[in-house]
Amino acid sequence: MTENENAFLKAYFQDRQKIVEEALLYYLPKEDNIPADIYKAVHYSVFNGGKRIRPILCLAAAEAVGGDLAPAMPIACALELIHTYSLIHDDLPSMDDDDFRRGQPTCHKVFGENIAILAGDALLTEAFVLLSRAEKVRLSAERRLAVVQEIANAAGICGMVGGQALDVLSEKSEPNENTLREIHRRKTGAIIVAAVKSGAIIFNAGKDKIQALAEYGINVGLAFQIADDILNVEGDRELMGKETGSDAARNKLTYPSLLGMGKAKEKLAKYIDAAVASLSGFDERAMPLIVIARYIMERKS
Amino acid sequence: MTENENAFLKAYFQDRQKIVEEALLYYLPKEDNIPADIYKAVHYSVFNGGKRIRPILCLAAAEAVGGDLAPAMPIACALELIHTYSLIHDDLPSMDDDDFRRGQPTCHKVFGENIAILAGDALLTEAFVLLSRAEKVRLSAERRLAVVQEIANAAGICGMVGGQALDVLSEKSEPNENTLREIHRRKTGAIIVAAVKSGAIIFNAGKDKIQALAEYGINVGLAFQIADDILNVEGDRELMGKETGSDAARNKLTYPSLLGMGKAKEKLAKYIDAAVASLSGFDERAMPLIVIARYIMERKS
Repeated sequence: MTENENAFLKAYFQDRQKIVEEALLYYLPKEDNIPADIYKAVHYSVFNGGKRIRPILCLAAAEAVGGDLAPAMPIACALELIHTYSLIHDDLPSMDDDDFRRGQPTCHKVFGENIAILAGDALLTEAFVLLSRAEKVRLSAERRLAVVQEIANAAGICGMVGGQALDVLSEKSEPNENTLREIHRRKTGAIIVAAVKSGAIIFNAGKDKIQALAEYGINVGLAFQIADDILNVEGDRELMGKETGSDAARNKLTYPSLLGMGKAKEKLAKYIDAAVASLSGFDERAMPLIVIARYIMERKS
Repeated sequence: MTENENAFLKAYFQDRQKIVEEALLYYLPKEDNIPADIYKAVHYSVFNGGKRIRPILCLAAAEAVGGDLAPAMPIACALELIHTYSLIHDDLPSMDDDDFRRGQPTCHKVFGENIAILAGDALLTEAFVLLSRAEKVRLSAERRLAVVQEIANAAGICGMVGGQALDVLSEKSEPNENTLREIHRRKTGAIIVAAVKSGAIIFNAGKDKIQALAEYGINVGLAFQIADDILNVEGDRELMGKETGSDAARNKLTYPSLLGMGKAKEKLAKYIDAAVASLSGFDERAMPLIVIARYIMERKS
């Protein structure tokens, strides 16, 4: 990236993370009406230094099709709640059994397994509360229902949950690139695709635009996962907030372990190029989407 | 109940259970696109002899306001998927740690804890897929979005998940009737209220009708829980498909343990009467709702 791009990206991400976090705080249920342990577990997990990639992608897609930020904000936040729920459940002892995430003890280590399961269940459900709640901004109910459908499908059995199941069961399956791509297309990719599509659907964007954003999302999703795998090998422990090398220690199927580090990096660059290329039909308002794609390739944590 | 009512009820329940189960089979994702273990765990848990009370209540409310069954069917099935997910997660070792449900080993005993957690997550998410999917029957997107909102709220942190958390944490709270009612209003009641309200909302019923159905649902929900508690003491092990007396063995806060059996039965009758009374503004099409309320009081399993 050029120095200008770098400066833009840094300011852009800081700004977007800030407004997403303010919105999350505004939208989450207030303390007085919910059991204290669930409230604490939900807030602990939502506000733990996440990069907010999914909401930022959703907002950037909304801008790319000429939409405003405010009406897309509940969708952006719903995506982050779904992402947070998936992390809480993935970390559970019967799943990946992780003790730390972003340098902090995982939800079940702090609040116990039962509260962690319920906090995840709550976040998933609250995402749909958020997607369906009465809004001051008047949006077509048809478009809003289409967004519910898009996100539910992406999070569901044919998307994220199915991907996590494939991952959990992956010791039983053939270790090849198709298996790996299928796991990640569902586990990480489906929600990223839903994020950019939803940001456009809500503003009634044309089919060609939505299709191009879906292409962008598929490629960014795969790139994101390869970058994660690479960081797990080469990343800086301090910046990451967790131990590196954990995938190798677990004998986990990853792009570097399957293809070698050189080829994994080639793939990453290829997917980023494809993501950027898919936006050729957009004007300068798609610039943030392009810069986010480049960030994914070069991120350090 | 009179002999006529009994005969009607038996035929009615058999008929409704059959069409709900056919619809569930039709709506659940097909085998070819999802990991085999998740498919099996989902089907094992959904088709295990459940009484289908929530979907049947939803359909009966639809009829009571003059609606057809077909457009209400995805809603009815979504409610059953949410109910099934809640049972799978409640049975987990870190929650109630139950080995049997309806005479069969619980989901995590058969498929492992990780698959059981994911099967529950999948069912919750598929409920929203079902509520938002494109339908042949043309219904207002506004009404459909209102149903998503109603059900998400009932299942969420202020409803069912919050109730389960209160239940899990109830050893820490004062054992009084308010605590107990609050747990059950959320844990069981909220979804039952959403079931009857949704069946009416989707057909654009008037506010007074929806409010009356909400009253019915609140009372039926509390009655349902008291009946459950009573059956856990006095029920027939064979008919129940599980050991009775488990609540007492666990020192669980229940209506009979708190109030004594006599007072618990009085409460049950009182709530059923209130449920029936709330329907005074309806015509004969509300008859099934009345009979279902009576069934809840007299059920044996």
